[in-house]
Amino acid sequence: MIKTNTKSDIFQTIKDLDLFKGCEDSFFQNLTNQSQFLPLKKNQILFLHEESATRFFIIKRGWIKLFRETFDGTQAVIDILTTGHIFGETAIFDKDIYPYSAEAAEPAEVISLPLSVLKSELETNSKLALKMLSEMAQHRKIQDKELEHRTIQNASQRIGCFLLRLTNQEASGNVTIHLPYDKTLVASRLGMQPETFSRALKKLKAETGIEIKGATIFLESLSQLSNYSCAACSSEFPCRDLKSGTAG
Amino acid sequence: MIKTNTKSDIFQTIKDLDLFKGCEDSFFQNLTNQSQFLPLKKNQILFLHEESATRFFIIKRGWIKLFRETFDGTQAVIDILTTGHIFGETAIFDKDIYPYSAEAAEPAEVISLPLSVLKSELETNSKLALKMLSEMAQHRKIQDKELEHRTIQNASQRIGCFLLRLTNQEASGNVTIHLPYDKTLVASRLGMQPETFSRALKKLKAETGIEIKGATIFLESLSQLSNYSCAACSSEFPCRDLKSGTAG
Repeated sequence: MIKTNTKSDIFQTIKDLDLFKGCEDSFFQNLTNQSQFLPLKKNQILFLHEESATRFFIIKRGWIKLFRETFDGTQAVIDILTTGHIFGETAIFDKDIYPYSAEAAEPAEVISLPLSVLKSELETNSKLALKMLSEMAQHRKIQDKELEHRTIQNASQRIGCFLLRLTNQEASGNVTIHLPYDKTLVASRLGMQPETFSRALKKLKAETGIEIKGATIFLESLSQLSNYSCAACSSEFPCRDLKSGTAG
Repeated sequence: MIKTNTKSDIFQTIKDLDLFKGCEDSFFQNLTNQSQFLPLKKNQILFLHEESATRFFIIKRGWIKLFRETFDGTQAVIDILTTGHIFGETAIFDKDIYPYSAEAAEPAEVISLPLSVLKSELETNSKLALKMLSEMAQHRKIQDKELEHRTIQNASQRIGCFLLRLTNQEASGNVTIHLPYDKTLVASRLGMQPETFSRALKKLKAETGIEIKGATIFLESLSQLSNYSCAACSSEFPCRDLKSGTAG
């Protein structure tokens, strides 16, 4: 594995982020000076919901689970993010309090960065603010879509949609899909109990003829899934509302 | 009813918006010059999902339903907004395409405004961009909350939460709640079939002892509902995540 924890690697990682395109090197340098490289063990908590926030994070490797918990420990998974995603940054718009908890869903590596530097950059750099607004608007659409699916898709159709988002939607012919993380986590990402997920996956197999071997799914063609799932959706396939390759 | 369709009324309405606090009068004047006052009949469509967008809107009166539709006409309600809310504005972050359809849920009055003026203001006014980011972050939290509730609350608990959001959460003693729009619309706002909603409302009554007469609900105290609904939620009551008085 390439060593990614030197300051110059961190500088480059930040600079490569699409969100920060067009920002000055002085901004990247300020972030880098106060950065930390954090290797995380599986299930290691990074911060808790409603904790006071001074840092935001970029994922270098692995999967980070964002979630909230009720008093009795029932968990609602908000998102599961991977390499290149940032999280914790919206705390600056909410009284510097984290709106969710974050934990490593698997061994992971993140870069911790100071929120204060991001905040002052946003106050003077309206291009960055616009870029961030545009990402927030995209995220809002994804959430609207997710709420829509909870209303009008059945559990099997929702799994089908999740799988389609892991593919290159322009692909023709046979397609192989690997689940990005374990099935229990996929279930909770989709807001399903593990038993509901198992039943729905079996039904999806029966309805569409897809083949499932462990964490790998084989399709004859994407339409096998899209005909089934996208029938109960307001977007057409290929889908401009849900980016390929994200589990969002 | 007060006449609200003169240009000076429109100027004042825009200037009073919390989102635009601190903007210059020239910005309000530019918006006003290209504004239109639109009275809408019940069920009148304002724009359709994926239509090209040149205008955004402020609600003066009534309720506006934002929704998306599948090919076979199944509807997913995204939001139902009222006086003082703006909508359609996020199109500027998404290739000038409306991310949803909008229709009057009841007779309503809206002010139509040019997106182009908002767009150029955002490009130079980073304070406005930050204000908008902050509103988007708040909205994102509400949506996260809604997805959480779809996962861990039952239908009756979700109706209870909807009702609590219509109250002054600091109130003590007896509370009377009026449904803001008809029950079918409340059901679709909550992503429920009308039959599911009826059953869940009956169950809510049985579980909490609230009294329901038509569109009016009587509580002995707010805790009657909050004990029941907020038990399956990661926020405490009173709720800092879901503003009082919004149906969001």
